[in-house]
Amino acid sequence: MEKIPPVKGTRDFYPDQMALRNWIVDGWRAVSQRNGFVEYDGPIFEYLQLYTQKSGDEIAGQLFSMTDRGGRDLAIRPEITPTLARMVNQQINSLARPIKWFSVPRLCRAERPQKGRLREFFQWNCDIIGSDSVYADADCIYTAIDYLRSVGLGSDDIVVKISSRAMLAELLKHLGFAQEQLDSVYALLDKRAKLPAETFIELAKDKITDEKLRDKLFAMLDKLQPEDDAIGDKLDKIIKYAPDSKHVQQLDGVFYYLGKMAVADYCEFDINIVRGLAYYTGIVFEIFDRKNTLRAICGGGRYDNLLAGLGGQQVPAIGFGMGDVVLEILLSEKNLLGHSQQELDFFVVYDDYKIFEEKGLPLINQLRKRGHSAVFDYRRGAMGKQLKQAATQKATFAVIIGQETKADGNVTVKNMAEGTQQVMKIEELPDRAEQLTGS
Amino acid sequence: MEKIPPVKGTRDFYPDQMALRNWIVDGWRAVSQRNGFVEYDGPIFEYLQLYTQKSGDEIAGQLFSMTDRGGRDLAIRPEITPTLARMVNQQINSLARPIKWFSVPRLCRAERPQKGRLREFFQWNCDIIGSDSVYADADCIYTAIDYLRSVGLGSDDIVVKISSRAMLAELLKHLGFAQEQLDSVYALLDKRAKLPAETFIELAKDKITDEKLRDKLFAMLDKLQPEDDAIGDKLDKIIKYAPDSKHVQQLDGVFYYLGKMAVADYCEFDINIVRGLAYYTGIVFEIFDRKNTLRAICGGGRYDNLLAGLGGQQVPAIGFGMGDVVLEILLSEKNLLGHSQQELDFFVVYDDYKIFEEKGLPLINQLRKRGHSAVFDYRRGAMGKQLKQAATQKATFAVIIGQETKADGNVTVKNMAEGTQQVMKIEELPDRAEQLTGS
Repeated sequence: MEKIPPVKGTRDFYPDQMALRNWIVDGWRAVSQRNGFVEYDGPIFEYLQLYTQKSGDEIAGQLFSMTDRGGRDLAIRPEITPTLARMVNQQINSLARPIKWFSVPRLCRAERPQKGRLREFFQWNCDIIGSDSVYADADCIYTAIDYLRSVGLGSDDIVVKISSRAMLAELLKHLGFAQEQLDSVYALLDKRAKLPAETFIELAKDKITDEKLRDKLFAMLDKLQPEDDAIGDKLDKIIKYAPDSKHVQQLDGVFYYLGKMAVADYCEFDINIVRGLAYYTGIVFEIFDRKNTLRAICGGGRYDNLLAGLGGQQVPAIGFGMGDVVLEILLSEKNLLGHSQQELDFFVVYDDYKIFEEKGLPLINQLRKRGHSAVFDYRRGAMGKQLKQAATQKATFAVIIGQETKADGNVTVKNMAEGTQQVMKIEELPDRAEQLTGS
Repeated sequence: MEKIPPVKGTRDFYPDQMALRNWIVDGWRAVSQRNGFVEYDGPIFEYLQLYTQKSGDEIAGQLFSMTDRGGRDLAIRPEITPTLARMVNQQINSLARPIKWFSVPRLCRAERPQKGRLREFFQWNCDIIGSDSVYADADCIYTAIDYLRSVGLGSDDIVVKISSRAMLAELLKHLGFAQEQLDSVYALLDKRAKLPAETFIELAKDKITDEKLRDKLFAMLDKLQPEDDAIGDKLDKIIKYAPDSKHVQQLDGVFYYLGKMAVADYCEFDINIVRGLAYYTGIVFEIFDRKNTLRAICGGGRYDNLLAGLGGQQVPAIGFGMGDVVLEILLSEKNLLGHSQQELDFFVVYDDYKIFEEKGLPLINQLRKRGHSAVFDYRRGAMGKQLKQAATQKATFAVIIGQETKADGNVTVKNMAEGTQQVMKIEELPDRAEQLTGS
């Protein structure tokens, strides 16, 4: 019989990889909660239309789609924001605002697998719906940083690049672009940091045929390059292009808040940040490693029209997504990976299986009922082998059930790390287990 | 713009439902760990062939399948056992045995949604691979009971019905059935408890055309009805049909172990238990509510040939799956549902937003950095409204930043449940937060 392989671009989570994944997800959960987000989730598949309607061509081109028995077109979720919008729309009148929700969905995209990009991954999502305040924008960005800081990434490791799509729209219109050209300029700019300068220029010539307009755009981009000035100076420059812009003030407000929250050194303004998804309307941001050798670790922004676009009311919203794949690569490079440890409290060792069945099985039941992990050898192997097994499985204690257990009801409890041991009545062990294991 | 609904048979997990799901999953995790299982997971989709090859017609007929860009046939996992077998086969030589693994996969089956059965659900899986011991069978069954007991289900609420497919095969052969008839008799028996007696007899006439053989089968089933005798008497009866059967002894051993583990009152022998999946070989079991108004809560069994059937070595294995849908219905009926509480430690309330930004934002950063949850109002609403919001969100403390905070650096920390309050320097709060919240 032939062996069937896993599908390329998916991952098998053996216990070590699972412990790592749990460590990442547990961290996301803890930081979400301390920032006031509550957890939700949706189905793994939705009607195809939910994604083709609003997410934009890039996402729509990467769908795993299928048809059910009733001939309905479905797709595995490539992102959770449309589901979130659908769910909030369904209960908009009963949900207290602002809605601060998080989720850690499993997502699938039919992409070519490559470094930092798989066909199946997990993505932390935090969203704030029902507030158009700059506080919400800033609190959202802060939450992403709060996690990355919590796992040991400093402002010399990562950078949050922030801009505003609404502001960019104003700047572009000021230069002479028409409303209907904006989407293609966004798509172009989104590629700028990812392409060699020459390739980008070629692409720009293709997308913006008006040479004068193109030159104006390049001139502006050069002036607003992120490398040179402090944020205040940059925004001053921008104001020359858009003198009455409330969007510049909003951006300024976001930076002010982030400064008060002591994470300003993580943050930069960057005019090139646009985001690939079609539905963003205001503040947009992406987080990168400072060396800029990896894809974005995180991306997000304001999407004030999405809920209305999916048949709901006009409700402002902002959120971000952080995938596990690039994050894991970066944390691994920085030697910052952890894992959720699963502890084995007791390995019950025996020589005579009849005594074990009589005395050991009830003991194991008692230990487990109280929440302690307890296992034993199924093979009735030699005691030495069982002790080795206990060591291999990193048991905290070995409980030795021998002939004396039958004779006088005693067991030997051996601390595997320290090598010390103590003898006690078998009936006493369940009561003393909490003190022994410290849990 | 039209609203797109969720797909029928899927669930939206709003925060309340998510807290319930997390409570169930956390319970499964804790019981898995205390019984010595370690967590793994696989991809949400696999090559279609992995399921069509070994799972049997029922599962194969319920697949959500799709084709990727390369024309490969894929399917969303309807169960995780084939993935488990694939993963173990891949690393069989480096994995220490017995392999005791658990997982809580999200699974999808293209069924007609009905009570207790959805098209998307979560299923707790525990498997022991690499041991053919009766201990492994029994430990597996014990683990399922250990969870159900831990959430408050007693032996008057639920029953574990246990049989052996290998033993049944012997009995059937003893009656005169040929090897190649066995699968269709299994399929027939699997339906017995689910159908009215008359419908079952009609179906039996259809499947077993030999009247004499059919009558013999009915006579044996009647004799081995589960209602009447103690397990010992039942097995004595069976031995008359299969005098040298080691399978009867194994079954006897499983019941002996479960008795020593103090869960015998949950367990019954039931000759009707066969399991729908094609790959079971030995001990099989299902767990039902005693009133028998719901579908099975849990099902499992030994599948010693599956790994070899998927291109691996011959390695014995046993496992079970417990879905969340029927479980939730039963726990709800019994009023035993819980939920994973998410606590909000601090709601920071302010009247003057400038003072808040100066003093409150750094405080919130400090609290969150130390792991305490802390939020504030984005709307700069009136203080009374903010305090109401703090109450609605069930914050443990409201921290009031007022004019005195500017004047002398004091904040008022109000215990929302007790109504008591204390005044302290704002800089002291982060250090005292642990003591205040008890975490």
